Amino acid sequence: MAEYKAPLREMNFLLHEVFEADKLWARLPALAESADRETADAILEEMAKLAANTLDPINRSGDEEGCHWKDGVVTTPKGFPEAYATYCEGGWGALVGNPEFGGMGMPKMLGAQVEEMLCSANISFALYPVLTNGACLALDAHGSEELKQKYLPNMYSGTWAGAMDLTEPHAGTDLGIIRTKAEPQDDGSYRITGSKIFITGGDHDLSENIIHLVLAKLPDAPKGPKGISLFLVPKILVNEDGSLGEPNALGCGSIEHKMGIKASATCAMNYDGAKGWLVGELNKGLAAMFTMMNYERLGVGIQGLGASERSYQSAIEYARERVQSRSPEGAKQPEKAADPIIVHPDVRRMLLTQKAYIGGARALSTYVARWLDLAKFSEGEEKQHAEAMVALLTPVAKAFFTDKGLECTVLGQQVFGGHGYIREWGQEQLVRDVRITQIYEGTNGIQALDLIGRKTVANGGAFFELFAADVQTFINAHAENEELAEFIVPLATELQRLKDVTVAVIEAAKTDPNAPGAASVEYLHLFGFVAYAFMWARIASVAAGQNDDFYRSQIKTARFYFARLLPQTRALAASVQAGSATLMDLEEDLF
Amino acid sequence: MAEYKAPLREMNFLLHEVFEADKLWARLPALAESADRETADAILEEMAKLAANTLDPINRSGDEEGCHWKDGVVTTPKGFPEAYATYCEGGWGALVGNPEFGGMGMPKMLGAQVEEMLCSANISFALYPVLTNGACLALDAHGSEELKQKYLPNMYSGTWAGAMDLTEPHAGTDLGIIRTKAEPQDDGSYRITGSKIFITGGDHDLSENIIHLVLAKLPDAPKGPKGISLFLVPKILVNEDGSLGEPNALGCGSIEHKMGIKASATCAMNYDGAKGWLVGELNKGLAAMFTMMNYERLGVGIQGLGASERSYQSAIEYARERVQSRSPEGAKQPEKAADPIIVHPDVRRMLLTQKAYIGGARALSTYVARWLDLAKFSEGEEKQHAEAMVALLTPVAKAFFTDKGLECTVLGQQVFGGHGYIREWGQEQLVRDVRITQIYEGTNGIQALDLIGRKTVANGGAFFELFAADVQTFINAHAENEELAEFIVPLATELQRLKDVTVAVIEAAKTDPNAPGAASVEYLHLFGFVAYAFMWARIASVAAGQNDDFYRSQIKTARFYFARLLPQTRALAASVQAGSATLMDLEEDLF
Repeated sequence: MAEYKAPLREMNFLLHEVFEADKLWARLPALAESADRETADAILEEMAKLAANTLDPINRSGDEEGCHWKDGVVTTPKGFPEAYATYCEGGWGALVGNPEFGGMGMPKMLGAQVEEMLCSANISFALYPVLTNGACLALDAHGSEELKQKYLPNMYSGTWAGAMDLTEPHAGTDLGIIRTKAEPQDDGSYRITGSKIFITGGDHDLSENIIHLVLAKLPDAPKGPKGISLFLVPKILVNEDGSLGEPNALGCGSIEHKMGIKASATCAMNYDGAKGWLVGELNKGLAAMFTMMNYERLGVGIQGLGASERSYQSAIEYARERVQSRSPEGAKQPEKAADPIIVHPDVRRMLLTQKAYIGGARALSTYVARWLDLAKFSEGEEKQHAEAMVALLTPVAKAFFTDKGLECTVLGQQVFGGHGYIREWGQEQLVRDVRITQIYEGTNGIQALDLIGRKTVANGGAFFELFAADVQTFINAHAENEELAEFIVPLATELQRLKDVTVAVIEAAKTDPNAPGAASVEYLHLFGFVAYAFMWARIASVAAGQNDDFYRSQIKTARFYFARLLPQTRALAASVQAGSATLMDLEEDLF
Repeated sequence: MAEYKAPLREMNFLLHEVFEADKLWARLPALAESADRETADAILEEMAKLAANTLDPINRSGDEEGCHWKDGVVTTPKGFPEAYATYCEGGWGALVGNPEFGGMGMPKMLGAQVEEMLCSANISFALYPVLTNGACLALDAHGSEELKQKYLPNMYSGTWAGAMDLTEPHAGTDLGIIRTKAEPQDDGSYRITGSKIFITGGDHDLSENIIHLVLAKLPDAPKGPKGISLFLVPKILVNEDGSLGEPNALGCGSIEHKMGIKASATCAMNYDGAKGWLVGELNKGLAAMFTMMNYERLGVGIQGLGASERSYQSAIEYARERVQSRSPEGAKQPEKAADPIIVHPDVRRMLLTQKAYIGGARALSTYVARWLDLAKFSEGEEKQHAEAMVALLTPVAKAFFTDKGLECTVLGQQVFGGHGYIREWGQEQLVRDVRITQIYEGTNGIQALDLIGRKTVANGGAFFELFAADVQTFINAHAENEELAEFIVPLATELQRLKDVTVAVIEAAKTDPNAPGAASVEYLHLFGFVAYAFMWARIASVAAGQNDDFYRSQIKTARFYFARLLPQTRALAASVQAGSATLMDLEEDLF
């Protein structure tokens, strides 16, 4: 397997040339002082080194060794504690944190690219700090001043890690039916009792403490999702002076044996009257959780992107080195027994498909992160607009990046032929690792329902119109540019197709309660393809006319995307428009 | 995970009602005496028991334990030797074997369904006898009378297993460059020297001997594929009287650690002047290998089908039992905390997609097996016609069943949500196991090249026209049936689309050497979708008007297939028609 090399040129291109991040940063007061191009480039270069030198080398060994559980204690694989220490020493846990509590306050546009490198190098490792980030976000947004002062600085520094405890054995998607209970105590704290499963980083040996954010219900709470509250429950209780005290009444009962991300500890957690503190308002725990959900979900999408990039890098190297058969055009390297397989059209199809999906995802991730930054750092109408865009695009990024992540890693494995199936080469691990990203943090089916239901049908398409207007503005701006017509004209066609389908589903939902669910996954994919087309057209608009290999590569990849991948919208639109009838017609016992 | 229950009703339906196997068997002299409906049903019922009671129970334990290699000796997981003995005692190894040497001479139409059950229950196990079958086929078709008498009876009985040794470290797809050499000896035998990798069942503890069919080159052989010969090389030499003699000069150097099929020993084999005997003519080894390749490749396709069926059975059970959220139509089981997830349109979409692909694959596998039987057991023009159909359809079955096999097992895993990612439930094993089927026995990319190149462009579409004529005959026969119009009309449209694309690629290939490769994979998928549409329309034509749950389920699944899955042809046709330009345009160093 090729050594990981962070795609810094691509990242810089998107950040500075396509999305002109520094202009945005300069005009937002919270970012004007901290974020600029020079700082951003330096940060990306540092993470590129950490990823390549520290995290990538323990990725396969971590998979082989896995995590271990013994007598309630979880041990991570060899090298993980040291790597975690290096990560913390670099201050990475504070990157996007609130400066009031020791964070660096950097924009998500930058954070997203940093996360991509983490995930390319080692998804299992990345999950520990990523979950801590998520917990920090929720705490920062909803915790009391006291809780924030007590916990955030040590979480930003990585001295304490974070974990999010949502799922229970009988309650995954449907959190409304959780049973973990929280009983109010006289001192204002709560006693938490219940069982949680699938808790990423629920226990491990990387940090001194683990701060759990736990969903639970008060004894008299309303039924369903409106009776859920969020609690901070530390593994080890923290004294008034910030020092560590007694262990809390919680423990890790076991870890899961999984298909992949084996170096990430997936824990079953037991709470036996553990001491916890309310975060945010009573019975508004789900809403508090959703504050950080947009960040987390984009982060999961980025895992799909990161794994794809890693797979692509190895696949290109292999395709250049492995010789097998001759080019259909005749021998290209007659001095060798055969030509390198990159001469074969179908090998190129696989590699270009990876490249085109990766480029689309990286651009869309930067675009969504930009809206996240606007939602966080701007004001008034601009903020509202950004919040709507984030709400609309987050499920697309989470599900589409990860569905394409599976496709890309499978393609990267396929390039290797039989060697792709052997553990030694590392390509198959990427397939196993990335597969979870389609499932956790809300399955991709749930993302699709969120997109078409809450984010589209529920508001009559209002959010969608904002997105469509952004695409249309771009189309209008380049309508007269003949050089770009090959991208702009089909983009307009695809936007219209997406509009038509959106309107049709909103209309169908008025009389058919199954219409949104029936349309959901194909609709999300249709949306994703059009969003990538928008991204590739934007990339092409910057790259066009520049006489440099990098830009020509962008233009040619954009052409491939439009010619060979984008046509999938035709099938997706047709499937959506077939409606719910054939889905709902088969009686349950006839399956 | 649900216990495996063989889909006997579906199998019987296809065999007897859709394809009227007994009528075919009755008119073919070689089958008239041995094969009839009663015998077929009895055989299928017996295999259903063996699969459910003996093979399925050791599937997960086999994955957990894997094979072990120590000092050149391979040990299979617990229970495998006993299961293999049971399999042999049942006479299963002889099912489709040549009666002259102890085989039962049964048709492949039946054999294919038997294989499906084997693969649903335990792909790793299935590979041992399936590879033996393949070796028997090649030996039966090309071996001398002496070799056949000496080896076939013990191979049919399973006392000796078979293995196929093709791949070398530097030569997978491109067998023309293999280096294993065969030196002629005075006694008419050969000394075989070289290294082979990825040899399924190259060594194991199931049988008394292992008969390797090895591709090698004579010292003076022509370069490339025309210098390859096929040799029979037993692990233990066989004395004149048929008893076992000295060990041969070959050994297993190691076994691979793989993503899946862990209970199947994938061996690196070393030949150090091992004694071997020529099978067939010198320098015609590849052709001899290809005799059995059509059977093997259909068999690999059936692995994709078998895994899909297994995944589907578990997914339905889970979807009926797992309660989570409410139906969009309102609570269906208000007495429970939530409704079973099968009420959700998107869960139904996943299950129906599995069901529709499985039904299409099972029908197409029976259809291809029928052509294999005609190619083997009929004469003259009918035989030639059948050989052409087999040549055309085999790559479609191999690649499309297995590509859809990955898709189906991924869907079946997705239905389980987080639990699908945990090893305990077994759904993730199916994904890992089925993944190899897209790679071995010729990658799916190679299948696609074979379909569009050798099987289509090379003969100007002659084979394709035979297939198209068969579809057209069916369309004509039902053109006036209004009840079937919902299937017949779109089938005619899709056939025309496939024809147009076929003609376009044949035309493009005249001037563009990259055209077939550029079209290949999408073309094969387009072909597969149309072939499944043909199958579902045939199924519907039998099921229509029958007032019974089973038939109604078939009709409704056919409707789902036509409405929701078949539209993918539009995208595939568009991608193919985009040609090779965007694939070939990117310079190698710009990837």
